Amino acid sequence: MGNSIQIRPIGFVINDRKTPEDYCWGEVVSEIKLVDLFSVECLDGIENFSHLEIIFHFHLLKDEDVVFDLRHPRNNKQYPLTGIFAQRGRARPNKLGATIVELVKREGRSLFVKGLDAIDGTPVVDIKPVMKEFLPRDAVKQPEWSTDLMKNYWK
Amino acid sequence: MGNSIQIRPIGFVINDRKTPEDYCWGEVVSEIKLVDLFSVECLDGIENFSHLEIIFHFHLLKDEDVVFDLRHPRNNKQYPLTGIFAQRGRARPNKLGATIVELVKREGRSLFVKGLDAIDGTPVVDIKPVMKEFLPRDAVKQPEWSTDLMKNYWK
Repeated sequence: MGNSIQIRPIGFVINDRKTPEDYCWGEVVSEIKLVDLFSVECLDGIENFSHLEIIFHFHLLKDEDVVFDLRHPRNNKQYPLTGIFAQRGRARPNKLGATIVELVKREGRSLFVKGLDAIDGTPVVDIKPVMKEFLPRDAVKQPEWSTDLMKNYWK
Repeated sequence: MGNSIQIRPIGFVINDRKTPEDYCWGEVVSEIKLVDLFSVECLDGIENFSHLEIIFHFHLLKDEDVVFDLRHPRNNKQYPLTGIFAQRGRARPNKLGATIVELVKREGRSLFVKGLDAIDGTPVVDIKPVMKEFLPRDAVKQPEWSTDLMKNYWK
């Protein structure tokens, strides 16, 4: 890959999910607590948004488990062999996750969010407000395997 | 911030936008060319998705220009003073951008995408397929300033 880029956690996830799982994330409420470097002001106005996008680091993933070419999504052979950038699984180069969550409330330097699919202790590297203008402007098409795979992900 | 995390460019943006601008990104077609490390297989099946999310690095942003607390969005005093994590501007800790684009075509290790708001030469650090299930499941609410700011962003 190209020259290395250094990023740092801006905060950490606190919730009751201790291991990665592939279902029932929808009702999980997580606290995202910013690290001490940040003043409360960096979240000012965030409560005017209903949704946030959280970018985080799959910190438990070992380097030797990263997939650089293709695999069956969720290692399920019923799904077609698919390139790692054509799926959202954890085992990806740079180990970054990105998930849109619902903002429940803000308390000082903590955000409480619903539907973040990241386990307790996960480093967060960015928080962005969701604006309608950044969502797809046309209908989204996706293959059948991805719809099947997402069946019990949130519920 | 916490312990540093190393990430690396998986590819680079090629387009005719040489300077950051805040308007007319919608029709820009960009090539994302993967670095040599990757085989073509890492994109296999991506053409079955209509939209992708591109995570990239605002590489031209100087460290001293990063905002850690608050500023007026786009430095426009008509917009309220707002925390850096309650806006999507470039001058943010970790300098990461995340944008949903339309996939136009794939050619070998290159993707051609429409609506990527990143200038020529931008390092890309992840590519994720957009699945409906990862979009907001309820109506999105956002403050008026953000709607105003986005007025000419795509057109």
